[in-house]
Amino acid sequence: MARIEVGILGATGMVGQQFIALLANHPWFKVTWLGASQRSEGKAYAEATAWRLAAALPEDVSKMVVETAAPGNAPKVMFSGLDSSVAGDIEKAFAGAGHLVISNSKNYRMDSTVPLMIPEINGDHLKLLDRQQSERGWKGRIVTNPNCSVIALTLALAPLRQFGLRTAMVTTLQAISGAGYPGVASWDILGNVIPFIDGEEDKFQPETQKILGRVVNGAIEGHPVVVSATATRVPVRDGHTVSTSVQLEQKVTPDAIIDAFNCFRGRPQELQLPSAPPQPVVYLADRNRPQPALDVNRGGGMTVSVGRLRACPVLDYKFVALGHNTIRGAAGAAILNAELMREEGLL
Amino acid sequence: MARIEVGILGATGMVGQQFIALLANHPWFKVTWLGASQRSEGKAYAEATAWRLAAALPEDVSKMVVETAAPGNAPKVMFSGLDSSVAGDIEKAFAGAGHLVISNSKNYRMDSTVPLMIPEINGDHLKLLDRQQSERGWKGRIVTNPNCSVIALTLALAPLRQFGLRTAMVTTLQAISGAGYPGVASWDILGNVIPFIDGEEDKFQPETQKILGRVVNGAIEGHPVVVSATATRVPVRDGHTVSTSVQLEQKVTPDAIIDAFNCFRGRPQELQLPSAPPQPVVYLADRNRPQPALDVNRGGGMTVSVGRLRACPVLDYKFVALGHNTIRGAAGAAILNAELMREEGLL
Amino acid sequence: MARIEVGILGATGMVGQQFIALLANHPWFKVTWLGASQRSEGKAYAEATAWRLAAALPEDVSKMVVETAAPGNAPKVMFSGLDSSVAGDIEKAFAGAGHLVISNSKNYRMDSTVPLMIPEINGDHLKLLDRQQSERGWKGRIVTNPNCSVIALTLALAPLRQFGLRTAMVTTLQAISGAGYPGVASWDILGNVIPFIDGEEDKFQPETQKILGRVVNGAIEGHPVVVSATATRVPVRDGHTVSTSVQLEQKVTPDAIIDAFNCFRGRPQELQLPSAPPQPVVYLADRNRPQPALDVNRGGGMTVSVGRLRACPVLDYKFVALGHNTIRGAAGAAILNAELMREEGLL
Amino acid sequence: MARIEVGILGATGMVGQQFIALLANHPWFKVTWLGASQRSEGKAYAEATAWRLAAALPEDVSKMVVETAAPGNAPKVMFSGLDSSVAGDIEKAFAGAGHLVISNSKNYRMDSTVPLMIPEINGDHLKLLDRQQSERGWKGRIVTNPNCSVIALTLALAPLRQFGLRTAMVTTLQAISGAGYPGVASWDILGNVIPFIDGEEDKFQPETQKILGRVVNGAIEGHPVVVSATATRVPVRDGHTVSTSVQLEQKVTPDAIIDAFNCFRGRPQELQLPSAPPQPVVYLADRNRPQPALDVNRGGGMTVSVGRLRACPVLDYKFVALGHNTIRGAAGAAILNAELMREEGLL
Repeated sequence: MARIEVGILGATGMVGQQFIALLANHPWFKVTWLGASQRSEGKAYAEATAWRLAAALPEDVSKMVVETAAPGNAPKVMFSGLDSSVAGDIEKAFAGAGHLVISNSKNYRMDSTVPLMIPEINGDHLKLLDRQQSERGWKGRIVTNPNCSVIALTLALAPLRQFGLRTAMVTTLQAISGAGYPGVASWDILGNVIPFIDGEEDKFQPETQKILGRVVNGAIEGHPVVVSATATRVPVRDGHTVSTSVQLEQKVTPDAIIDAFNCFRGRPQELQLPSAPPQPVVYLADRNRPQPALDVNRGGGMTVSVGRLRACPVLDYKFVALGHNTIRGAAGAAILNAELMREEGLL
Repeated sequence: MARIEVGILGATGMVGQQFIALLANHPWFKVTWLGASQRSEGKAYAEATAWRLAAALPEDVSKMVVETAAPGNAPKVMFSGLDSSVAGDIEKAFAGAGHLVISNSKNYRMDSTVPLMIPEINGDHLKLLDRQQSERGWKGRIVTNPNCSVIALTLALAPLRQFGLRTAMVTTLQAISGAGYPGVASWDILGNVIPFIDGEEDKFQPETQKILGRVVNGAIEGHPVVVSATATRVPVRDGHTVSTSVQLEQKVTPDAIIDAFNCFRGRPQELQLPSAPPQPVVYLADRNRPQPALDVNRGGGMTVSVGRLRACPVLDYKFVALGHNTIRGAAGAAILNAELMREEGLL
Repeated sequence: MARIEVGILGATGMVGQQFIALLANHPWFKVTWLGASQRSEGKAYAEATAWRLAAALPEDVSKMVVETAAPGNAPKVMFSGLDSSVAGDIEKAFAGAGHLVISNSKNYRMDSTVPLMIPEINGDHLKLLDRQQSERGWKGRIVTNPNCSVIALTLALAPLRQFGLRTAMVTTLQAISGAGYPGVASWDILGNVIPFIDGEEDKFQPETQKILGRVVNGAIEGHPVVVSATATRVPVRDGHTVSTSVQLEQKVTPDAIIDAFNCFRGRPQELQLPSAPPQPVVYLADRNRPQPALDVNRGGGMTVSVGRLRACPVLDYKFVALGHNTIRGAAGAAILNAELMREEGLL
Repeated sequence: MARIEVGILGATGMVGQQFIALLANHPWFKVTWLGASQRSEGKAYAEATAWRLAAALPEDVSKMVVETAAPGNAPKVMFSGLDSSVAGDIEKAFAGAGHLVISNSKNYRMDSTVPLMIPEINGDHLKLLDRQQSERGWKGRIVTNPNCSVIALTLALAPLRQFGLRTAMVTTLQAISGAGYPGVASWDILGNVIPFIDGEEDKFQPETQKILGRVVNGAIEGHPVVVSATATRVPVRDGHTVSTSVQLEQKVTPDAIIDAFNCFRGRPQELQLPSAPPQPVVYLADRNRPQPALDVNRGGGMTVSVGRLRACPVLDYKFVALGHNTIRGAAGAAILNAELMREEGLL
């Protein structure tokens, strides 16, 4: 079977590199086009950027010539790891020109016609696409995945909806790779904590409500969960840790919650999508887990690890969740979205 | 004026070294006795332990001979930085023998006759001592300071009592020095987060309630605040960061809260105690503060820095507090207790 | 084909865990026996130790009951990751009882009848075994691999022997995993450099001379290279970096040296041993490589990466080498030794 | 006595901030002028830059209005912490306009009429200034201090000149603050070693030869020492560690070398300059010192700590030196230069 040709917008950035690494041996997709800023145009990819991942840069990609991030000869399916400062215009241009843009950028996440997808949770949000082309006047489409921290949180919250999820209070301890490259200056973070990430906290409630929401008459009816977040940066390379307290409407035992985490499955598992982890949420019984150094790559970086479930004297339960922010929280998330869309006949 | 002779229990440990460093040029106290485990007995201090602080080891202390941690020839006033596994028996022995033990250990903190002091907040808890000797049968006394994280939290909460403090939800990001020495293995924490500190979370509610409580008929009536804590360890050398959300009975503006932080003063400031910071709680307006690397040594490590005050959608307000865990949170706390007691005529 | 049963001495330590991880899916060997200190005896492995690697603990090993590190029911082939404080006696006991001990410990490395092997360099040193049993009176045998830093250095020096290698001046920047567990206290290394590793520097010259030496009349004639080493510890999890200057008898061009690195092959490559990297030494052209974060896992952690070749004004050439200290430098080294011995008919 | 007004070029950078911190309470100098790039012009200093040091930003400096880095109303004495990309033109403009530029930048260090000073070593190099004005046609003057790593090395080598210093082979482990701000990206250095610093290694031999040289007929006759350097970056905030091997013409005992380190003094100590450490080089007997975390602030950051002296099998002796790179290696170095010049009547 011929692999589907895909392009990468923002190919030289941190998320762009992660797209390339994850697609290196993908059974369905093949990277044939790389787009970046004008500075990189015309250069071989290996010259246009310093490869910064431990995973090897595929030989064929290293020689590809980088193009400006504009539609033209790009393939139909485009993954976008563009910086939000430019993603708005570029992604619109590609969607307008008929491309399917599967984006990790924040710009269209809250657009009422754009799915904000975590395929295990809300693959049915693809229905929004029915209205997108007519309402936006695009020949193509845009589909998005959530913010890296929100993905880890929401995968841990989704199994709790059955218990009447009301509120979530979270403090995140986020890895430096989440800030892109060059991102955080080493002087600012080495041996330090920065208790602020610009624009981050405001995304938690709206994105979570949309993700956990349902499609009613072609529009999202958001989930009523109230989310309060404090986002901090810590000297960790990969892996966002999310300290979480939740309020639930129902009385429920710890064992029932642990079962809910471990038994949670979605369409990607049903369809056995290539990037789908066998178990999207894994509860770890050891009292000092999850830890980025030990757990971040579980399920190829697509599994969210949860631990430390216990009663919360203020709300109902507390736990700690961990997700790989550039795999499950960015490039891997977008690839899983594309895989689902292929199986749904939307590529 | 002759300085008061003091001894140090647990002199070779992390907190013991911090006691020695902070007392090096103290105007009132002079270290003349060092106690540690039998392994160190009879050795010069510089041989009994590897000095692990950047502050210089005072020449005279380096040559002192370490004694076993048992009463006998020790001075009346003893600072204790003993590990909790041995502090219970040793501190009792010293108190029984007539010493005043000013302890950083957890063992007697919740004893109903032992003050758990932060002098800015509850210097009047010294009244408990009236009952201590009779009830415990000790010729001497024990006074304690709180857990290192609880101190930072409680100094930030104390100014909010006036607004009807009801609940506090906290996630801490704690420095490695809080675990003593050798403490946390580097393999466990380098580039990592450990979302668990043994025994730590359980201290938050009882210690906070006692510290913020008042003395009624010679006993503490605890403050009714409900505290829920998640304690994590991060790769920071010194400084515990406390992400905090609070619920208040009264409607209050952010400015009023910031004023409350900045105007908070206590007996140590009135009396101008040598270790008292001019301002025990400082609110930092910059949106990315406080940070351990920049703020931990404010006020000689005795000031708690607070920042990021904003509304909390789940409770009422959120903020981040930071305190130096081995100075304000341990050795400096005990020394401030001793300074207050001297002024109150209790040495 | 049935896999050969192997046991692991020091199974709960850092190197022991690495043995288990690397042997998890080994085509020739199967772990069936675990030995550790008496404290662990009788416990299931998962209870006897905290698994500290990101690689998963194999299900079957987690349930194995740990035995005392004494011969008896152990399989013939034993891998040893014992601490040197106990390895001397225990390995002798196993060798005496007929076991083949493939050891990572330092105790027998410099014994004149014990091969100190890096299979790419000196597989022929197995000839020493002819004398070992008679001279030592053991029914079994001991084979060792070098110190973790020395392996990285020696693999980089071996290709230079053809140019008349005379001296090597090295400064190492060693990872914390090299110190075992708990090893280096986090307080000592976080944001710090420790310019001393106990006993480390003294191993460089004797081990290098033995490894690069040749067997003459059944004994090693050491290579005459003079080695001067400074060993430092840096806050890196895995990967020893070795800054190296060498003096060579012959005039040689940089290109010839780079070719020598890249073309270097040995018996493991010829025999295509399961753990043999296709290329044992890889020269990286980028001027800022090798780096632990990017290069340590090259060749499954079995490749030594070299970079920055340039003229040295004091000696002749300078370069930087990097090797994975617990894989190529410890457990993987021992496994490669065992693989070679199997092919040589010595198991 | 009125303090001398001084200005700071590059006031918003890492070295500029360090100048401000060190001059906060200087007895002789008072900062009255701040220059930076046009982007900062007209802004209050506190708005023009984020203060990034733990030392407090002085209240008066925080309110100063930043000016463009051009002569005009600037005071006569100017400290320069400019980036080398702009320092060449700007410093020349100031010198041309009659200012005394005391520079930390590399641009004029190797100019034959510009002193490259470490006052303890070569205060007599100020004689070069006699020729500078006539040869360069400047109304003012430029005086420089060496590269941050070279200062630490050279202060350790200077006491060895008496033994016939011939060669030095060094590997540095340099702190991130040496790269300025934002400098090294956290992704590049967290838990990593970068074995390359652009342009750094080439400075070692020429700067060291000039610094240790003597003035003959108004020109520097360089010291003949041959220096070979490998420069690496490590995850340390402040403090460059220099692993060093030296060759000496004379036979000399370790004790004689240690005495040479400890007894080394220069003009700053004679004159008791405000920033002069009592002992410029301190030998530490503990076998695991010097360490950045413990020793970098010795002598207010102006002392170079040396340790681990032992025989080198390739050259003669090995040791490890450590200096604070932004104090002794940058801002403090320039201030000490200015202090010496004041006492020499050159301000």
